[in-house]
Amino acid sequence: MKVFGIDPGSERTGYGCLDTDGSRHRLIVCGAVSTSPRASFPEKLLLIHQTLRRLLAEQRPDCVAVEDVFYAKNVRSALKLGHARGVALLAAVEGGYPLYEYTPAEIKRTVVGYGRAEKAQVGEMVRLLLGLDEVPTPHDASDALAVAICHVHSTHGDAHEVMAAAARSARRSPKSWREYRP
Amino acid sequence: MKVFGIDPGSERTGYGCLDTDGSRHRLIVCGAVSTSPRASFPEKLLLIHQTLRRLLAEQRPDCVAVEDVFYAKNVRSALKLGHARGVALLAAVEGGYPLYEYTPAEIKRTVVGYGRAEKAQVGEMVRLLLGLDEVPTPHDASDALAVAICHVHSTHGDAHEVMAAAARSARRSPKSWREYRP
Repeated sequence: MKVFGIDPGSERTGYGCLDTDGSRHRLIVCGAVSTSPRASFPEKLLLIHQTLRRLLAEQRPDCVAVEDVFYAKNVRSALKLGHARGVALLAAVEGGYPLYEYTPAEIKRTVVGYGRAEKAQVGEMVRLLLGLDEVPTPHDASDALAVAICHVHSTHGDAHEVMAAAARSARRSPKSWREYRP
Repeated sequence: MKVFGIDPGSERTGYGCLDTDGSRHRLIVCGAVSTSPRASFPEKLLLIHQTLRRLLAEQRPDCVAVEDVFYAKNVRSALKLGHARGVALLAAVEGGYPLYEYTPAEIKRTVVGYGRAEKAQVGEMVRLLLGLDEVPTPHDASDALAVAICHVHSTHGDAHEVMAAAARSARRSPKSWREYRP
């Protein structure tokens, strides 16, 4: 099974794809979409969306796991993060992939065994579980791999499936809107 | 000049397109993308994005004006609104349209003459300025038309242009990301 993990962020969106038989995992690709500080915010969104769409089309994973977020420093950073996460989810849904969401605490608990683990501990477990010599960098990439590993190890996958059947029929055209033409 | 206004929201995204010579405006189309309460959140994002893309391709406006937001009730609603606004901006940027953003206060000040105007006052001014018999419904549609009218009447358009030159070259492929393949 191929799992594609995403850790969305407005400055850097991490991604990681792994192949697994359920207990042994193999890293296929990981990285982060880093946007230029000179780019406008809409340009950043475009880059995140285009890159994820390209990678998903290249990898054709069996499912996509995305970090879920309920918390942000303030309303302003929540708005920014929401924009980035929105275009990341869109890339997955457009591709028709079953989509799963996990909170940061679930990811840490599943990967490290402790819901309040430090970033470094998560990175180290990702390194060990994937049999790598070094922790993948930047940390957004290893965070995305942690989401993917969380999905594989989670026994409650079904509870987190937010779009499976629906995603498969994603290419149907939208039906529900109200419109007025004079 | 054809201006396409968007008022993004996670439950309902308003849109409105008008034709103008700078002082007289004519309504072309307006409406709102309303998502089913049964739809998953990613499905809602897909519907918003697909509908706006289709409408923009249909209308080919000279520019797109979107309501800017800095405020939300709380972090949770900011995150939700951010997702919807993210896919709305993406639709505009993908189409390569010059993109302008206006805050709710700027829109009210420009359309009604008072930055803290009530929703009903905005609707009534939209009705008058477009020479309509009734205020367009739902209110998200007339709010979107207010953003478009704000853009036309704003003498500071340039200051609000967030993506013009960049948008025109939007179809270039993304260049900036870091990737690791074992």
